[in-house]
Amino acid sequence: MLHYIYLMAITAEAMTGALSAGRRGMDWFGVILVACVTALGGGSVRDIVLGHYPLTWVKHPEYLILTSIAALFTVMIAPLMRHLRSLFLVLDAIGLIAFTLIGCQTALDMGYGLLIASLSGVVTGVFGGVLRDIFCNDIPLVFRRELYAGVAFVASWFYFACDYLGLSHNQAILLTFLGGFAFRLLAIRFHWEMPKFQYSDEG
Amino acid sequence: MLHYIYLMAITAEAMTGALSAGRRGMDWFGVILVACVTALGGGSVRDIVLGHYPLTWVKHPEYLILTSIAALFTVMIAPLMRHLRSLFLVLDAIGLIAFTLIGCQTALDMGYGLLIASLSGVVTGVFGGVLRDIFCNDIPLVFRRELYAGVAFVASWFYFACDYLGLSHNQAILLTFLGGFAFRLLAIRFHWEMPKFQYSDEG
Amino acid sequence: MLHYIYLMAITAEAMTGALSAGRRGMDWFGVILVACVTALGGGSVRDIVLGHYPLTWVKHPEYLILTSIAALFTVMIAPLMRHLRSLFLVLDAIGLIAFTLIGCQTALDMGYGLLIASLSGVVTGVFGGVLRDIFCNDIPLVFRRELYAGVAFVASWFYFACDYLGLSHNQAILLTFLGGFAFRLLAIRFHWEMPKFQYSDEG
Repeated sequence: MLHYIYLMAITAEAMTGALSAGRRGMDWFGVILVACVTALGGGSVRDIVLGHYPLTWVKHPEYLILTSIAALFTVMIAPLMRHLRSLFLVLDAIGLIAFTLIGCQTALDMGYGLLIASLSGVVTGVFGGVLRDIFCNDIPLVFRRELYAGVAFVASWFYFACDYLGLSHNQAILLTFLGGFAFRLLAIRFHWEMPKFQYSDEG
Repeated sequence: MLHYIYLMAITAEAMTGALSAGRRGMDWFGVILVACVTALGGGSVRDIVLGHYPLTWVKHPEYLILTSIAALFTVMIAPLMRHLRSLFLVLDAIGLIAFTLIGCQTALDMGYGLLIASLSGVVTGVFGGVLRDIFCNDIPLVFRRELYAGVAFVASWFYFACDYLGLSHNQAILLTFLGGFAFRLLAIRFHWEMPKFQYSDEG
Repeated sequence: MLHYIYLMAITAEAMTGALSAGRRGMDWFGVILVACVTALGGGSVRDIVLGHYPLTWVKHPEYLILTSIAALFTVMIAPLMRHLRSLFLVLDAIGLIAFTLIGCQTALDMGYGLLIASLSGVVTGVFGGVLRDIFCNDIPLVFRRELYAGVAFVASWFYFACDYLGLSHNQAILLTFLGGFAFRLLAIRFHWEMPKFQYSDEG
């Protein structure tokens, strides 16, 4: 089931990436590239950092076709997208937890400890958006809005705790999903934010 | 022969990278770095993504010396460069096809299928310029001007088709070169562009 | 001893990274990320480019904890930081040479020649700051201020020369440290800069 959620998640992330490229007036190739980077970039950074080859989309190029089609589809239905913001916030929340769980699992399967596994989850969940913003020449949004990386971080440790408490693999995934998803939606609803650090060189 | 064209191409790309750094007023070290990244960054991203070690310039550090010299040479003859724009568009077109062919071949030699080989070609051809623009804090140009990534994409499939039709390796390379080069020059001459995607959050 | 200097250096670099994130008003997660990237990004780029796995901080996640604590500590004492600029210039100079030496040594241990070892040193010393500026959406500073990459470059060849002249490993490291450190401080004091390259498309 995590697999189908993953496919749904990369599709949704690709569509948000395509919108970012559209805000910058990129051409269709740029739209496709930013969409693919947003959807698959987090996992790619994780795999490159951990030396986990081949990368997911190199092994499964059909994911690239899926995200590319999602990008072009977004171009077609762009006027509609303005009315779907709530839907995409929900899909993005689902994707965040799915990416995080997959990232944790990848590192655990490679034999790493919990701290690296947690970071692997956060990187997988968050870095697609960071790369999207770097490609579109923005300051990464994920560090300026409602809890996002924080949700991934908490979800990863919640997942490890479920495992530690003796729950089955599937139970742990399901519980983390429900908990992380609720946490993210609550963060959006009530504008929970990490404290910001404002620094200027003048006193 | 592809080898000599490659050397010519990284030299030309290094020179365009040096000009970009100069537009931002970087010092000579920055000029050299941006030049090397522009010339060798596409192949480096490809190698890192595919896990193809050692990277080209790590194996052949003499390429770095070549691109560094080209960067400093550009600084010397900068006032002249304004009159050489057409020449550099031509050299860049040659380089784009050379990089694309080398990128395709690298992936095919590693046993990947045509889709990944095509993407490997596009990344090798295009990502040097993308990284140059990220280092210089610009929105990547290649997605906002005349067909560029599109030329690399078409050239890669043209190359596979030549191979499929039974042409010899050298014939396939030569034909792709002529076709891709003509395609790129026509795109510049007649301002062929990919459709752009303009999106704004307001209606 | 180089090990303790390294720990001091990543702490200091993390703190400068945290300040950069604060200038952009990022939240605490962003501050921690930029701090870790600044402190450990140079070595990570080096390891990824050379295919040197596992990365330092993947093998020693305790370094991440150290840099994260340093980042949060910086948030606490931010008003104080304005008065510590000279101290941080000194710590940064020490870190630059330490990173450079470690980068050189890593490449030499992998069997690479002097040119790649030198570049490995420069990348380790300089790229943390380059990535920090890309994440914070700035034009990389290291190529626009007093000699920085240049100091790393000269220090690496000075180190090789010490080795060539028959000095012991420890003597070579100590001498490079003193020489590189003095060179960097003199560069700051007397505003030694690389010549800049100013280019504009109009004549």
